[in-house]
Amino acid sequence: MTKVTCDMAVSVDGFTAGPNQSADTPFGDGPVERLTQWMFEQPEANAAEIDAIVAAGAFIMGRNMFGPDRGDWDESWTGWWGDEPPYHAPVFVLAHRPREPLEMQGGTTFTFVTDGIESALAQARQAAGSADVAIAGGAFTVNQYLAAGAIDELRLHVAPVVLGVGERLFEGVGPLSLERVGVNATDLVTHLTYRIVR
Amino acid sequence: MTKVTCDMAVSVDGFTAGPNQSADTPFGDGPVERLTQWMFEQPEANAAEIDAIVAAGAFIMGRNMFGPDRGDWDESWTGWWGDEPPYHAPVFVLAHRPREPLEMQGGTTFTFVTDGIESALAQARQAAGSADVAIAGGAFTVNQYLAAGAIDELRLHVAPVVLGVGERLFEGVGPLSLERVGVNATDLVTHLTYRIVR
Repeated sequence: MTKVTCDMAVSVDGFTAGPNQSADTPFGDGPVERLTQWMFEQPEANAAEIDAIVAAGAFIMGRNMFGPDRGDWDESWTGWWGDEPPYHAPVFVLAHRPREPLEMQGGTTFTFVTDGIESALAQARQAAGSADVAIAGGAFTVNQYLAAGAIDELRLHVAPVVLGVGERLFEGVGPLSLERVGVNATDLVTHLTYRIVR
Repeated sequence: MTKVTCDMAVSVDGFTAGPNQSADTPFGDGPVERLTQWMFEQPEANAAEIDAIVAAGAFIMGRNMFGPDRGDWDESWTGWWGDEPPYHAPVFVLAHRPREPLEMQGGTTFTFVTDGIESALAQARQAAGSADVAIAGGAFTVNQYLAAGAIDELRLHVAPVVLGVGERLFEGVGPLSLERVGVNATDLVTHLTYRIVR
């Protein structure tokens, strides 16, 4: 049966990005490069976790993850990932303005959903078939799905940094009971996988 | 050389206690029993980490960890731990009112320090000799020492629960660069040990 998963790179104090995110600084200010350093500097040591991030049959992301400026991109903006995004599957973008679907190379299609998180999840489930649906981020979107009780498996990639300020995972969420189903660590990250108990 | 260590049991979202802490509910409201369940239900599986918590040569704690009511205990209050507290070493309590030292059974002595965190640390270092000094909590006190750059090793005991509200570790702290020096997991807790890089 389809599982709803969520991968998030977080600081030890639970931030997924610093403050003042923009087109030039999509992760905001501060030592935010630490959050994803494990992906870029040690891809082989973390290969299983990196592969799992894009293994779902459909994805959902917030408009701030698709583009900068709180969704006020023009029609020429096609996401951060170039012509061939790493998803290779349908991606549903929570937008506040309608837009025609964008078909990219390699199987990624961005569909813009303006009628809320439940609608996006229903569409993603249908698109995924028997595969998993992944909530791809950012934190604001993940927190909405967590608060709605819609996520089954949370995979935290904890980077060895305290940011102190920024965008916080779990804001407005809880209490939630979790069950740890896996832990794996390399130099630059600790991977914690939790099942959310209902 | 003396290291300054700190052990903290935290929720996945970084809380060390829920809201509304009192004498009857020292950890506050919410599913806070999850924070320390690993100690009480699986002491053997977590024996090394439990032993390490009280292995230091001297301890420092905030007044809210020594007693309830924000330090307004009377002279008959001798801490939460009965006649023989588990520290078996000098404990320096950050107090706002002077009080004579309290000698307990088993080697624990509570000394009340009213002139600040630096004074308490200097006294604890002297008392510990070549052994480690442990900042015992609570979060408010730990955050003060973290912000002052005084902690060398942070041992987080992450419980599988999201509390959503409460007393937050790392409040007002950061950015800090960490280096992971250990990870160990049992069913009810993930032990993460970090060195704080300066």
